[in-house]
Amino acid sequence: MRKVAICAPATPLKRKYAEAVLALAAEEFPDIALHFHEQCFVEEGHFAGADAVRLAALLECANDPVFDAVWFAKGGYGSNRVAADFIGQVQPTAREKAFLGYSDMGFLLGALYRAGIGQPIHAPMPVDIKREGGEEAIRRALGWMAGEDAGLEPSLSGRPVTAFNLYTLAMLVGTQFTPSLEGHEVLIEEVGEYEYAIDRLMFHLVEHLHGVAGIRLGEVTAVPENDRPFGANPEEIVRGWCERYGIEYLGRAAIGHTSANRIVPFGLEACGARA
Amino acid sequence: MRKVAICAPATPLKRKYAEAVLALAAEEFPDIALHFHEQCFVEEGHFAGADAVRLAALLECANDPVFDAVWFAKGGYGSNRVAADFIGQVQPTAREKAFLGYSDMGFLLGALYRAGIGQPIHAPMPVDIKREGGEEAIRRALGWMAGEDAGLEPSLSGRPVTAFNLYTLAMLVGTQFTPSLEGHEVLIEEVGEYEYAIDRLMFHLVEHLHGVAGIRLGEVTAVPENDRPFGANPEEIVRGWCERYGIEYLGRAAIGHTSANRIVPFGLEACGARA
Repeated sequence: MRKVAICAPATPLKRKYAEAVLALAAEEFPDIALHFHEQCFVEEGHFAGADAVRLAALLECANDPVFDAVWFAKGGYGSNRVAADFIGQVQPTAREKAFLGYSDMGFLLGALYRAGIGQPIHAPMPVDIKREGGEEAIRRALGWMAGEDAGLEPSLSGRPVTAFNLYTLAMLVGTQFTPSLEGHEVLIEEVGEYEYAIDRLMFHLVEHLHGVAGIRLGEVTAVPENDRPFGANPEEIVRGWCERYGIEYLGRAAIGHTSANRIVPFGLEACGARA
Repeated sequence: MRKVAICAPATPLKRKYAEAVLALAAEEFPDIALHFHEQCFVEEGHFAGADAVRLAALLECANDPVFDAVWFAKGGYGSNRVAADFIGQVQPTAREKAFLGYSDMGFLLGALYRAGIGQPIHAPMPVDIKREGGEEAIRRALGWMAGEDAGLEPSLSGRPVTAFNLYTLAMLVGTQFTPSLEGHEVLIEEVGEYEYAIDRLMFHLVEHLHGVAGIRLGEVTAVPENDRPFGANPEEIVRGWCERYGIEYLGRAAIGHTSANRIVPFGLEACGARA
């Protein structure tokens, strides 16, 4: 039996989505026990509770030795606000745990990876059950927790990897939470940003990246229509900045804000450590 | 007679706005000769011409010894794409010139300030004539060029200052174009961003700022309505991040994406150098 604690370091989850995930897990993954922390459902302004409330739940989930993994319920914005206190107060018992999520949770995954704590995993989250085909996303995450490798990002090649939402990574670089990405394949994806904003975020990102193995582009979805065409699509934008800065463009990845979002264990985990 | 060259390192200006600015200048500022470079009106996708076209016009305006100042026509996004080549190719003749603009032009103002080239000035731009009360904004910029100090930001205190759009400054920090802001009052303003995005940009900014004299907040306009209230207004957000990071919050400034936008000469220019 693998025990998984679920909390929401950014924005709240609707209880009906938690119930749907619990039902799916009970039916199909009897060896996984999910524990949704009540903090997931707290609402305070934008956030799933004040910073102190979200931090306390996150620390409970990470520090309680009964749990094997911490699954983030939802992104949305806000995990950066508790990242410093979390890294400062997380206990050694967290060091063996997997931490799973994506989007805004990239702040925590990056901070954990920098600190060498636990196993950060880019993966679907409980909130994804609301998407069309979302049950498949949930099965992919639960399947990985159950020991299956079928949900892994197909491009994983034997080089160390990380995966981030582009905006989140652009806000992470240069901060106290930035892991070294030297030698890494950096997978990025984006949702809901204009092409000009993607271009601007890429500028900021490549200015900060040093010695990476390359950039791989996941899905770029829900790009708003601007008052005029930008003149380049997202892949052309990413490729163009890679060329300017001498970074290898590695092609596409199967990550993104969709139900097809694949699993990317940070580092080299997918290539041997667990096998 | 002061001669002012106008180009558009980001997005194109409508010719009617150039004509309106020319008419106002001819009527009220007979000692200022404005020269709109034809590049201002080029349209190519998002930009006022390809990178090479915008760069060439910018270099012509900066390097031609006949001009006393370079006035940026409009922001919008894109000046970062030509900043490196501009700084690399600008000639000594540019070193005595004022460069005036704001918003996306902060990339160039910051890069010039870092390189110690010319006098970067946060100031209204020709495009501002389209705003309600926009003629006042144009008069403020032209008045400054004509030697008047009436349009200066009222808070200028004798400490060195810079002024930036928050998003632009967040994209500038940590890059090859970032000036040292040590000991500076950093004035910021924002337009069209959700409060949660302002919070995220502030996180990134304060992580990168070291040894500044403080932050002063200009206008924050056109904040979109989110699906739920954020829980803090822009001033509370800025104040909160300042408190967390031990940065002095200095109060409000009269800069922003409005016709009230005041003039902020970078550094100590306003306090003696020109007097």
